[in-house]
Amino acid sequence: MNFSSSSAISSFENKSVLVTGGTGFIGSHLVHALVNLGAKTFVLTQKKSDVWRLSDIQDKITFIYGNLCDLDLDDFAKLETLDVVFHLAAAGVNPKHNSSAELTQVNVLGTVKILDIAKHFQVGRFVYCGSCFEYGSGQNLKETQPLVPMSEYAASKSSGWLMTQSFSHRYHLPTVSLRPFTVYGAFESPHRLIPQTIVSALAHADIQLTGGEQTRDFVFVEDVVRGFLQAATESEAIGGTFNLCSGTETSVKTLVSHIIELTNSQSKPRFGAYPYRDTELWELSGNPKLSESVLGWRASISLEQGLSKTIAWFQKNQNRYPAYNL
Amino acid sequence: MNFSSSSAISSFENKSVLVTGGTGFIGSHLVHALVNLGAKTFVLTQKKSDVWRLSDIQDKITFIYGNLCDLDLDDFAKLETLDVVFHLAAAGVNPKHNSSAELTQVNVLGTVKILDIAKHFQVGRFVYCGSCFEYGSGQNLKETQPLVPMSEYAASKSSGWLMTQSFSHRYHLPTVSLRPFTVYGAFESPHRLIPQTIVSALAHADIQLTGGEQTRDFVFVEDVVRGFLQAATESEAIGGTFNLCSGTETSVKTLVSHIIELTNSQSKPRFGAYPYRDTELWELSGNPKLSESVLGWRASISLEQGLSKTIAWFQKNQNRYPAYNL
Repeated sequence: MNFSSSSAISSFENKSVLVTGGTGFIGSHLVHALVNLGAKTFVLTQKKSDVWRLSDIQDKITFIYGNLCDLDLDDFAKLETLDVVFHLAAAGVNPKHNSSAELTQVNVLGTVKILDIAKHFQVGRFVYCGSCFEYGSGQNLKETQPLVPMSEYAASKSSGWLMTQSFSHRYHLPTVSLRPFTVYGAFESPHRLIPQTIVSALAHADIQLTGGEQTRDFVFVEDVVRGFLQAATESEAIGGTFNLCSGTETSVKTLVSHIIELTNSQSKPRFGAYPYRDTELWELSGNPKLSESVLGWRASISLEQGLSKTIAWFQKNQNRYPAYNL
Repeated sequence: MNFSSSSAISSFENKSVLVTGGTGFIGSHLVHALVNLGAKTFVLTQKKSDVWRLSDIQDKITFIYGNLCDLDLDDFAKLETLDVVFHLAAAGVNPKHNSSAELTQVNVLGTVKILDIAKHFQVGRFVYCGSCFEYGSGQNLKETQPLVPMSEYAASKSSGWLMTQSFSHRYHLPTVSLRPFTVYGAFESPHRLIPQTIVSALAHADIQLTGGEQTRDFVFVEDVVRGFLQAATESEAIGGTFNLCSGTETSVKTLVSHIIELTNSQSKPRFGAYPYRDTELWELSGNPKLSESVLGWRASISLEQGLSKTIAWFQKNQNRYPAYNL
């Protein structure tokens, strides 16, 4: 991965960095980057979590086992100091059913618990991973947009953001909040659109889809990880909230066509095979200007480049991970 | 209490109405109003709660004992139907210490639990009691103002509001959210500014205060209760969020002077005896226009009228309630 400046590298060397959600899609990429940058990297995880995305660097990281909703300082006895917290752990990212109460416990109470830990350690930076779903729907969404939660997942992510803001205001905790849009790349969860489409396309299998008219703002995971690293190092960003988006809208239909083309696949996409969700969000794209001007970040990898890299990764690695088998 | 229309009366007669926080300051006034309007009134409370504010109508209401964070349907076995829920229960209203985790449990998870109950019963209206603190600080604050939580209490109240909004969007639960400003009147909690000042003024005792330059938007509890009732009956209000405020700013200094004058007290206010809080909010006043146009509500009782009524109540009742003794 390329970083925009060498400062990011020196910023993390030998620093104690805690990642929650480090076994997840974005989190595991971030953990890899931190290890490469020489950080002492701690990953908070549950004993039961599957660490398949971190299998190649398990000896270079320290796992802290604990339940986010039930943390106390004893869980962090391994830590003498803590410089940076990246808080990515959340329930409901995957569409498996989580009750409203579970979403609240993990995404709101869990955020409060980890904020308390960060406050105790007087960290130099706390980076909160929010979500584009906080906006409801819309095009060219700015960070100052009123929040319109269309689901309890969205409401819980905004609630975690509000708690982060209150720790920033009341305790001067140096926080930065990020709102990634539709992130894709290697290691994305197998049930999601892009992995499913790539795997099907590579197998020349038919692809069952909704009508595909909904648009999204796709952003490549390596760009997103760079955004997280800059959020932890850019001093102007403190207290702020930033979209991680490309600013470009692409329909699901166009996306699927790109994948079929890039894989030279014989697959036929069956648009309309599935109904749209009752709660379908027709448009969801962000305005990247604040991130560019304050965070010094912009998405640098085009959708075509990012899809090509992702497809190449699947071609090389799909068989190593049974989860991706059709 | 006068209501702006007779429709409110017929709207509640024989309706099943649940009030959470019904033993609190605003809640107890609301419960009295509902009993007067002929509602079958249920009050969700913890067994340990002190019901002093409802002592005169205990035989006219039904208590449901339960812990807001741990509710399930069995707790509501007494209810066949449920028409309206007023959700006023919250932690942190009083400045006794609540941890961030407790505020999240009660104010966010508790709200989700009661929203789930309301959804199950397919209520005709769910009224959420938010807070002016959701705005942070400012003058002439509109409901569309970005939320700037300066404390975990504020963040938790906004989080409860977001959860309420998500149930409105996703499940079409007919919700209305209210943001009362600085509410005062009979039965206000003894430690608060106005009760303390009135009790001291009536005893001609000196009054220790901060500098008193901070301004608030004071609104009389009977006006506020009328706002809650209209939120439950006005169909145009569904899905909306409304300030309950006077639109007038008054400094603490002016307020205290009014009380001393209205009580003909010999008390001397000692402004500056206490330091301001580190987190003092210097201004906090609302814009009442949306409430006027959509909810059909406006504060009708002036500060002088409201204080006179409150003082008269204290003169008559203070000795009945040991909590108000100096």
